Amino acid sequence: MTTNNRASVLTSPKADFPRWYQDVLEKAELAENGPVRGTMVIRPYAYGLWERMQAEVDRRIKTTGAENVYLPLFIPQSYLEREAEHVEGFSPELAVVTHAGGKDLAEPVVVRPTSETLFGELMSKWIQSHRDLPMLLNQWANVVRWEMRPRLFLRTSEFLWQEGHTAHASREDANAYALRIHLEVYRDFLQDVLAIPVLVGVKSRRERFAGAINTMTCEAMMGDGKALQMATSHELGQNFAKAFDISFTSASGQLETCWTTSWGSSTRMLGGLIMAHGDEQGIRIPPRVAPVQIVVLAVKDDERTLTTAASLVSELTTAGVRARLDDRTTQGFGRRATEWELKGVPLRLEVGPRDLEQGEATIVRRDGGAKQTVKLAEINTTVLALLESMHTEMIETARQRLAERTVEAASVAEALEAAKTGFARIPWQRLGEEGEEALNREAVSVRCLQTREGTVPGDEDHDSELIAIVGRSY
Amino acid sequence: MTTNNRASVLTSPKADFPRWYQDVLEKAELAENGPVRGTMVIRPYAYGLWERMQAEVDRRIKTTGAENVYLPLFIPQSYLEREAEHVEGFSPELAVVTHAGGKDLAEPVVVRPTSETLFGELMSKWIQSHRDLPMLLNQWANVVRWEMRPRLFLRTSEFLWQEGHTAHASREDANAYALRIHLEVYRDFLQDVLAIPVLVGVKSRRERFAGAINTMTCEAMMGDGKALQMATSHELGQNFAKAFDISFTSASGQLETCWTTSWGSSTRMLGGLIMAHGDEQGIRIPPRVAPVQIVVLAVKDDERTLTTAASLVSELTTAGVRARLDDRTTQGFGRRATEWELKGVPLRLEVGPRDLEQGEATIVRRDGGAKQTVKLAEINTTVLALLESMHTEMIETARQRLAERTVEAASVAEALEAAKTGFARIPWQRLGEEGEEALNREAVSVRCLQTREGTVPGDEDHDSELIAIVGRSY
Repeated sequence: MTTNNRASVLTSPKADFPRWYQDVLEKAELAENGPVRGTMVIRPYAYGLWERMQAEVDRRIKTTGAENVYLPLFIPQSYLEREAEHVEGFSPELAVVTHAGGKDLAEPVVVRPTSETLFGELMSKWIQSHRDLPMLLNQWANVVRWEMRPRLFLRTSEFLWQEGHTAHASREDANAYALRIHLEVYRDFLQDVLAIPVLVGVKSRRERFAGAINTMTCEAMMGDGKALQMATSHELGQNFAKAFDISFTSASGQLETCWTTSWGSSTRMLGGLIMAHGDEQGIRIPPRVAPVQIVVLAVKDDERTLTTAASLVSELTTAGVRARLDDRTTQGFGRRATEWELKGVPLRLEVGPRDLEQGEATIVRRDGGAKQTVKLAEINTTVLALLESMHTEMIETARQRLAERTVEAASVAEALEAAKTGFARIPWQRLGEEGEEALNREAVSVRCLQTREGTVPGDEDHDSELIAIVGRSY
Repeated sequence: MTTNNRASVLTSPKADFPRWYQDVLEKAELAENGPVRGTMVIRPYAYGLWERMQAEVDRRIKTTGAENVYLPLFIPQSYLEREAEHVEGFSPELAVVTHAGGKDLAEPVVVRPTSETLFGELMSKWIQSHRDLPMLLNQWANVVRWEMRPRLFLRTSEFLWQEGHTAHASREDANAYALRIHLEVYRDFLQDVLAIPVLVGVKSRRERFAGAINTMTCEAMMGDGKALQMATSHELGQNFAKAFDISFTSASGQLETCWTTSWGSSTRMLGGLIMAHGDEQGIRIPPRVAPVQIVVLAVKDDERTLTTAASLVSELTTAGVRARLDDRTTQGFGRRATEWELKGVPLRLEVGPRDLEQGEATIVRRDGGAKQTVKLAEINTTVLALLESMHTEMIETARQRLAERTVEAASVAEALEAAKTGFARIPWQRLGEEGEEALNREAVSVRCLQTREGTVPGDEDHDSELIAIVGRSY
């Protein structure tokens, strides 16, 4: 019966992945469109997930020594114009306030599409001496980029993100810090918390951030084989520092120009989590980030069942597990079970009178493992162990898909063929910028350039040795 | 020498309180103006403080059962017009986006001054049955209200806040929940964390939120005797529910209209914290909210001092104290001590070779208590005890000021006189709406109405028994 319910609820991701995605956002009560085109309402269940993601990313950022600040939503239009590539990159997406406080503004103000320019202006003021360096700042904020083809979490006119901005005394220091953020914050979070394997590398010249001299990226494969860019870190060289006059007096008394970086990750990662792990039954939340790791479902409404279920929740909570009670016994058991599967809670503990007679309860894994009967006294240890192994299995499953759907290609034609179902790996020397253009004409792009070992290329790696990862993308 | 330094740094709050406030924001590196008029840059030290305040408020909100969501920044202009008093209240302060994505918008959109109307629209969709009630939602976000006379933290064109929005089946339930938020979230946080005593009560009809049937407030007295409204909770009756059609099917199958509430607190509380506790030396941060509770200051740069200072920091951290090392021994000791006093860190531990000979170090309290020599082995317990007693003494000091500067008044003239230096208490029956108007003409206002016992008046309390708290305000 449960299976019938499921079938009627969700489109199959194999049949129609985009429709499955829309379905799941709605039925699992994750997000919906706001009244202004392209805007998004993040509902409690998804926002709870975002709060946990945010806390994990924030903790890692702070470990690198960066501090949080808050800069204004509104930016004078003139600021954006100071860095030529930057304004060109953002102009078509800007939202502009022309009227405020009951009258037309003398100078219209832009709603921040990123705070790059404001950080530039402030750092110019805050940095005087080499003793002020490195300056490591981060901001959690909403940004606005007007979207013509919005899609919840993936491309919305307003989204939530963190943007880091740092200034350094040398190119080497800037590069090392951006790389550290990329690997120790982003890659670590995506793999160790979200259980999403990522390919790290640099963007090709065509795909770089407007104004950057180097853009690092974490690319992940979604359930349909398409790529999603999960986070990027940019070396801005001295472009912004020159445009905003961010300079410092060195130890030897020379006036020198800073090297800056910026790096960001956003609510787009929520879309990635859904599309990387979801299945026929709904979303699947990786245990380390799940707001609810186990739901304790009271099967019947008899006193003993309800009391035991409630006390199991408090025991699990004490043991450090995020547990939640479902005692809505007036609703059908199958319907409730389906709902928790749709919402992707990693474990379900079914507590009913028959099992209780034997001093037992039943644990069901969201990832389809066999039902398991467990002694009440052993529940805590079993649950903790299961949550750990589920994380490992989730990332392993995603790794297998990535491996199975990645093809070694030797030509543009082969790469295009591979991109129909996944990624292609092709030597950058063979592809080149002309080949990249040919791919782009078919809506396929170079997701990143890696060394042969799959690491982020540095100055010591020659272009001719790099591998291009190619695919369709969101 | 330290005293001389101090004097040259800060204006005295007794001589010129507004200038002292501006001075302290700048010198303690808390906040500064953004480039667009009325906007604000929150610097790392103040933002760290805000993060801790946010965490404490958020935890209390969640304890009441509310969940966080995120709603769009942009609101269709038509939404604001649905509730007559609401649009009238906000119209003069709105910022309007008329141009986006490279062209003029067919319908201009408003940058949210509050999300009242969006919550109304969404709740209308999300609430169907009495089983969906109460619906308890909260949002942390930036909001925009164009300010003609901006003042950092207190009145800025953009500020950060939380806004709670709830829907209930009855007036009683709405009232009880709003009161709970008011006392268990706001009052508790302000007193037990920020060490700021607050007067709780309701707003007079004149001072109510646009569209509310009742507004509860927490009012605090600042260092200059003026009032600051720290947080408010509104009962919106059925006004918004009717305007947005928020209705539910009752248990008996009737279609009924909901009762809604909203409640908020903002970065304004940072201004309150600074103005309630600051003194001649700078700000004073209450220990429970301080990002740094103790700074361990290495007096000299000899090996033993530096090693001991660092290991004391790690011992204190292990004991749960937020400790920070200051080993900038190339800078003068007095200058560093003054800086930490300016920044209001509750305790300073001075570690130097002479004390270390005796196995001791010196603890200095920011609130001016005597210097204390402590055995190294006893530092943890001494620090934990001092932090606790400092909280108690800070709120006690603030309570004494509130008591000393509050006068019982029997006439408008007496109330105006009292408002020159603090608050007046005057029976509401004696003041009345005419008296309130007379006060307003002199820039003095009714801050709240309380029962004789100082509690929030309810339906059972007759107007004739209420006391009006009167004062000048920010």
